[in-house]
Amino acid sequence: MVDDTAPKLSLRERNRLRTRADIVRASVPLFEAQGYEGTTVDEIAFAAGVSAATFFRYFAAKEDLLFAEEEELTAALTEVVAGRENPAQTLNALADPFARYAKAVLDQDSAEMWRMTRLVMTTPTLEARSLRHRLRWERAVAQQLAKENGRKTPALAEAVTASVAVSCLVSALRFWHNGSGPHDIADLVAEAFTHAAESQVG
Amino acid sequence: MVDDTAPKLSLRERNRLRTRADIVRASVPLFEAQGYEGTTVDEIAFAAGVSAATFFRYFAAKEDLLFAEEEELTAALTEVVAGRENPAQTLNALADPFARYAKAVLDQDSAEMWRMTRLVMTTPTLEARSLRHRLRWERAVAQQLAKENGRKTPALAEAVTASVAVSCLVSALRFWHNGSGPHDIADLVAEAFTHAAESQVG
Repeated sequence: MVDDTAPKLSLRERNRLRTRADIVRASVPLFEAQGYEGTTVDEIAFAAGVSAATFFRYFAAKEDLLFAEEEELTAALTEVVAGRENPAQTLNALADPFARYAKAVLDQDSAEMWRMTRLVMTTPTLEARSLRHRLRWERAVAQQLAKENGRKTPALAEAVTASVAVSCLVSALRFWHNGSGPHDIADLVAEAFTHAAESQVG
Repeated sequence: MVDDTAPKLSLRERNRLRTRADIVRASVPLFEAQGYEGTTVDEIAFAAGVSAATFFRYFAAKEDLLFAEEEELTAALTEVVAGRENPAQTLNALADPFARYAKAVLDQDSAEMWRMTRLVMTTPTLEARSLRHRLRWERAVAQQLAKENGRKTPALAEAVTASVAVSCLVSALRFWHNGSGPHDIADLVAEAFTHAAESQVG
């Protein structure tokens, strides 16, 4: 999501973001080789060329590495939904923003994001955290739909629509990581929405 | 789910089930008054008239009290889905078994189950466990749909249908506990499925 109107970042801020990304990038092959549990913060810091103290200036805990952008990701989904072309609160209207969201967030650096998604989805101790992320998405989208209807708290219809849309996204993500390697996540999300629509017939 | 063909339980087994139910029942008002975190196993055992040692013969941990029947509940949902009247793999065909399941499981002793559901849904530390239950439901239903299609692993279409159906159930449960008191859970589940169907139009 490139924003040309964004203020230029200071050198300091750019360095900060680069260090942060370096740490995340260094962790992925370690997790894959030794398992999430079997990898220590010290090993990750060493691989990233920083001290453990520096690591903890960027991440409160090892777990945060794989959920580094949780809030930003949730805000981004709300934003894409809010700006959708078709203002209807239907799966048809949500399929496109959800697919675009998945593409923007996951496909930029596809191989790496695919590996991180797979790590999260195959590490049982991370399952709870990953499910909380799903719940965040659901709440944020339901809140957005409620807001569009001038309501503060989502009604059942809004909650169901949000939950169904997020189910499509999550099912697509699961299949994305189950496949033998990165393939187009936007296509999978679109396919999931189509299946959801087809599950109505009959 | 009354089953007239079930073998009669021995006195010993009936006593066991009664003690187990007594412990669960004793825990609910304590959790409500003092919070889940603020209530100890000793207090629950005392209120139920058993020793802490007896408590641990029935439950491995305090958390298990509120998820006492997780496996049985998942098996029951699969069974109701497998025995549905309309064999189609559509939301229409799943709405009825899901509503009947909710009614059978939650409405028997509605006030108490409502209180337990509310406890689970309002205690942040229990959220993760509650989400794992949702995932179990999804996997079990997807597995059942795959099986019906002669497949060992669910395809995306089956996974999406299961996930959407469970989303309807979970959304209904959330609204059930948000309401001012117990109301008909089967109606709410049916309503959620209707909303999911309507979210297609447009």
